[in-house]
Amino acid sequence: MIHFDTDYMAGAHPQIMERLLATNLEMTAGYGSDDYTRHAKTLIMEACGLTQGEVHFLVGGTQTNATVIDGLLARHQGVLAAESGHINVHESGAIEASGHKVLTLPSHEGKVCAEEVERYIAQFYADDTYLHMVAPGMLYISQPTEYGTLYTLEELKSLHEVCRRADIPLYIDGARLGYALGSPAADFTLGELAQCCEVFYIGGTKVGALFGEAVVATRNGLLPHFFPLVKQHGALLAKGRLLGLQFETLFTDGLYTRIGAHAVRLAMKLKRGFVEKGYELYIDSPTNQQFFRLENHKMDELMQHAGFEMWGPRGETHTVVRLVTSWATREEDVDTLIALL
Amino acid sequence: MIHFDTDYMAGAHPQIMERLLATNLEMTAGYGSDDYTRHAKTLIMEACGLTQGEVHFLVGGTQTNATVIDGLLARHQGVLAAESGHINVHESGAIEASGHKVLTLPSHEGKVCAEEVERYIAQFYADDTYLHMVAPGMLYISQPTEYGTLYTLEELKSLHEVCRRADIPLYIDGARLGYALGSPAADFTLGELAQCCEVFYIGGTKVGALFGEAVVATRNGLLPHFFPLVKQHGALLAKGRLLGLQFETLFTDGLYTRIGAHAVRLAMKLKRGFVEKGYELYIDSPTNQQFFRLENHKMDELMQHAGFEMWGPRGETHTVVRLVTSWATREEDVDTLIALL
Amino acid sequence: MIHFDTDYMAGAHPQIMERLLATNLEMTAGYGSDDYTRHAKTLIMEACGLTQGEVHFLVGGTQTNATVIDGLLARHQGVLAAESGHINVHESGAIEASGHKVLTLPSHEGKVCAEEVERYIAQFYADDTYLHMVAPGMLYISQPTEYGTLYTLEELKSLHEVCRRADIPLYIDGARLGYALGSPAADFTLGELAQCCEVFYIGGTKVGALFGEAVVATRNGLLPHFFPLVKQHGALLAKGRLLGLQFETLFTDGLYTRIGAHAVRLAMKLKRGFVEKGYELYIDSPTNQQFFRLENHKMDELMQHAGFEMWGPRGETHTVVRLVTSWATREEDVDTLIALL
Amino acid sequence: MIHFDTDYMAGAHPQIMERLLATNLEMTAGYGSDDYTRHAKTLIMEACGLTQGEVHFLVGGTQTNATVIDGLLARHQGVLAAESGHINVHESGAIEASGHKVLTLPSHEGKVCAEEVERYIAQFYADDTYLHMVAPGMLYISQPTEYGTLYTLEELKSLHEVCRRADIPLYIDGARLGYALGSPAADFTLGELAQCCEVFYIGGTKVGALFGEAVVATRNGLLPHFFPLVKQHGALLAKGRLLGLQFETLFTDGLYTRIGAHAVRLAMKLKRGFVEKGYELYIDSPTNQQFFRLENHKMDELMQHAGFEMWGPRGETHTVVRLVTSWATREEDVDTLIALL
Repeated sequence: MIHFDTDYMAGAHPQIMERLLATNLEMTAGYGSDDYTRHAKTLIMEACGLTQGEVHFLVGGTQTNATVIDGLLARHQGVLAAESGHINVHESGAIEASGHKVLTLPSHEGKVCAEEVERYIAQFYADDTYLHMVAPGMLYISQPTEYGTLYTLEELKSLHEVCRRADIPLYIDGARLGYALGSPAADFTLGELAQCCEVFYIGGTKVGALFGEAVVATRNGLLPHFFPLVKQHGALLAKGRLLGLQFETLFTDGLYTRIGAHAVRLAMKLKRGFVEKGYELYIDSPTNQQFFRLENHKMDELMQHAGFEMWGPRGETHTVVRLVTSWATREEDVDTLIALL
Repeated sequence: MIHFDTDYMAGAHPQIMERLLATNLEMTAGYGSDDYTRHAKTLIMEACGLTQGEVHFLVGGTQTNATVIDGLLARHQGVLAAESGHINVHESGAIEASGHKVLTLPSHEGKVCAEEVERYIAQFYADDTYLHMVAPGMLYISQPTEYGTLYTLEELKSLHEVCRRADIPLYIDGARLGYALGSPAADFTLGELAQCCEVFYIGGTKVGALFGEAVVATRNGLLPHFFPLVKQHGALLAKGRLLGLQFETLFTDGLYTRIGAHAVRLAMKLKRGFVEKGYELYIDSPTNQQFFRLENHKMDELMQHAGFEMWGPRGETHTVVRLVTSWATREEDVDTLIALL
Repeated sequence: MIHFDTDYMAGAHPQIMERLLATNLEMTAGYGSDDYTRHAKTLIMEACGLTQGEVHFLVGGTQTNATVIDGLLARHQGVLAAESGHINVHESGAIEASGHKVLTLPSHEGKVCAEEVERYIAQFYADDTYLHMVAPGMLYISQPTEYGTLYTLEELKSLHEVCRRADIPLYIDGARLGYALGSPAADFTLGELAQCCEVFYIGGTKVGALFGEAVVATRNGLLPHFFPLVKQHGALLAKGRLLGLQFETLFTDGLYTRIGAHAVRLAMKLKRGFVEKGYELYIDSPTNQQFFRLENHKMDELMQHAGFEMWGPRGETHTVVRLVTSWATREEDVDTLIALL
Repeated sequence: MIHFDTDYMAGAHPQIMERLLATNLEMTAGYGSDDYTRHAKTLIMEACGLTQGEVHFLVGGTQTNATVIDGLLARHQGVLAAESGHINVHESGAIEASGHKVLTLPSHEGKVCAEEVERYIAQFYADDTYLHMVAPGMLYISQPTEYGTLYTLEELKSLHEVCRRADIPLYIDGARLGYALGSPAADFTLGELAQCCEVFYIGGTKVGALFGEAVVATRNGLLPHFFPLVKQHGALLAKGRLLGLQFETLFTDGLYTRIGAHAVRLAMKLKRGFVEKGYELYIDSPTNQQFFRLENHKMDELMQHAGFEMWGPRGETHTVVRLVTSWATREEDVDTLIALL
């Protein structure tokens, strides 16, 4: 069986496992106050070209979104997001569980559009009853999106500009950020992305780590009292150095971007394979998630040999499926799959 | 100035004020354990034709929705509602503040459609990732809706049937229920409505009381431990008898329905007046809220003489407005308004 | 039957009922945007000698505490209170329901002591693990306390000074503030109390109103975005003018303090009656709540003729009871009770 | 430097690292639906002698407590715990953040006493105002406690009996359960402990794992809909097999208990060393945490050579300190420390 189900099916990149093993018996202080963590933070700040701000390591994505959003919003505020956004669809209500409404915007292949964000905010304050409504207190986007699509640098700048005018922070969920950075379609650097938002996170779980997400606040004071908030949200890892070690490895010698580039190269090959054999693209994604609309019988047949997911419920005759590559995907598996088409 | 802004602009129906005054110096136990409250509960149970179930009195609508929904849902569940529903739009996030997501359905002039509810639930459980999504744990509707429209008895039965099949409760927000019951278009009785849901509330604030909403659970055991939950939600009135006295009055000699009928009769007259003078109906509402699409200059002119609200932001050339009658609206005010058109 | 059960057994002071009746048919805008509310706010600001700050009207006490505390605290903070404090004991967990821990201090007849507050805060920050603990983010006291006792002006100043040094707000629950102001033992004015805290509330429910509490923020900016927070907490009254009218009446011609003085005079008479007949004081309260330790048989006998509450569970041989006077207590009832001893 | 600061300073037990490495490149489904997780659950059920019930793997302790407590309590209920309990002191308010009050009982060297639990519950329901108070909805204890002490089997049975009579679940926090099971003072087996409670967790983070806690519900139906609740609490690990693999290893060939026994043997040696040199025990703990009351100058001197924590703030002349052993403590380090005394 070959696997394209998700990008979190294997363990960690071998270099990470090596580091964890090499340091395993060392004794360090808990909760991220160790030197590995400090060093990893420095490496990330440098990679982002930031001279102020801060980095925090959390364990998983849902947890990270819930904690950061709770940290950025006042009680009466909600978070703007694409209708298709992870926080709106796939987090079991974690955002609402901490008391905040997700305010939805139309999804354009997973992306929100600056004009629509601006209009939403304008109409909100134009409504005489706005004090009875949930105020848009921040904007959430993901890069890449749930559909594997990318915001261009221009789009990021426009969104940031809209947020700045409305005086609300822009937060970027980068659960798969490595697969954005590793895409030939990306017209932005990590440093440019950092300039286009208040807070973002660099996903580790899906990009080579056992687990772990690095929250980057791009200015000082954006996430005050974050440590107890992280703990309150159950997102504080006792053996914090595990996070530090993993991100230190990922941000040494460009491993993080290399992982992304590897997976995206194979995803592009896979896409070409499908397209050349006449299959229908559901979305033209430039990153590691690929979406096709398959005839059900073909889907069933392929599923005998390869793991992948239906994207939503099974259709009458055709079903949309998602195939995902990762740092752990082997070229031969892609070749095998293409041969099966 | 004549007023059609809302149905909560005056105090209470004179008969209620009379009762409050007559009993003012009596000493009774607090928190609803008095005889007036007990009697009011009995009157409501009788009016609903219920032999089991329970009645609870709360102070206001948002509070009531937040408390009941919190009482009906488990932690991991959300509440289905029309996108235009009061809980989704106009409660400052009170539902989310108690941890629950509002799951939205298309609004058809304020109403949800049984087929769409059923499809939502079916697609939810057909999705392999449903455990990562917020489970639909109940259905919220209002009667009349935010747009003044009414569900027919048939529609209520269909919705209830869909809920029953999905094993989730149906809850009806009756903030303006009197104006449904008092409408010639209503093809259901209070007793029939009670049979079509698990819980509903009979609105007092907008139908003649100073304040107060009567929550009716139509079977035993639907709202366990409701008293501390009400208190926790800040919805427990110390001088609980004030609620009992008001609802006792409303449910004596049919006052509640008479109030509704009065307001709806005037609303129909007002609608006819607008239509006959060539104004455009925005929605054809059979209850006490009427919606028109006015040219801005006409709206501005009318606003010199009569109070009413814009429904959403002001448009470029036309704006939708809402005019509302209540128990306190006088026929002469309607006549005056029509003369102004 | 004569009643000393609580101070919220009757309706409203006759002058309030008169005002409600006189204005009943007037049409005003909702949610506190009417002129009565504006005027009441002005009267209260004047009575407090405040030139800045703001006044908000809410419906009930638990609701007010939950909303104000939620407004003053950051997510990671808790509220310091006496172990016997209303928010710790008798609010069905409303404070925790909005996510905040109540951090308890020893109760000295209902009061907290400035030294102990200071020590708590000092030890908190002296603990190396304090980031894993709930930070004391404000101090809650009530005046009078749950036991009817009063803080002296000196004590209030000391508490405020401790809070100022710790840079946390002091909040005073004045559910029965009128009975403090009306006590001969009170060595402070309303204006002086206002200078000793950031926020306090002037209780209406227990001091002559049908319901209603006036939250006073003594400086600008202490409760930002309070309106949607009030709504979110279910504490926003649709017919807001009812609150305005009641507080306007209470703060005209000194009615509020007169009500307090009347009740306290009768409470003192009642206390003298008990003491002179040899009964044991449980606490020597200078306000409208009086506490005695009665033999059970005497308690049972008295309960045949007068309503009052056991203070905690019934003891083996003796039980502590509480008797409460209010604006509605008549002198003849006190005389009757004393004659029964 | 030798370290006795905590039991989570090193990585994982070498056998665990070996397993993680050996399986690193395997592709498995996420969120705990893999075979390693299934096998680990079976091993744990067997080790507990359970034929029904269920096992869930979460990441960390605070998270586990918050999720389980939220799963066991209704909205209006709180959790009984020793005043010194981890959930009351050291979880940054995570329990309250999900809306529940921690109801405190006296701590007897970290333990609660069955009589006091029973009395608390009896007095609660004997109080006429109990509906205004937070109902005790479950009992939380930890084994070993925060002070390293152990409940005897008899004590566990008594507590469970009290809970059964009150119809509330008993939940045992076993963050350091291995160090209880490995103590010669333990008069209970894992199976016996499982019979004395509804839910407990077997701590991994502090007992040889990189991270991870195994929640055991001892009967079916105790934690309904737990999966989305775990996700909502941010406690769901994407690469769930990492938890399965670690607990599979810990519950193969008795590794879990052997780890505990090793640490406790060294802790006993360390205790004897201190006592023989005349140091004062603060608490006589039979597990891996040892508490001494040291003169400050001695403490400062020792801290030059060995890491350990002050237990609370530094005293005037003496300070209580805690020294902790773990699976990773070497006998030579204990010898070195004793030689320093």
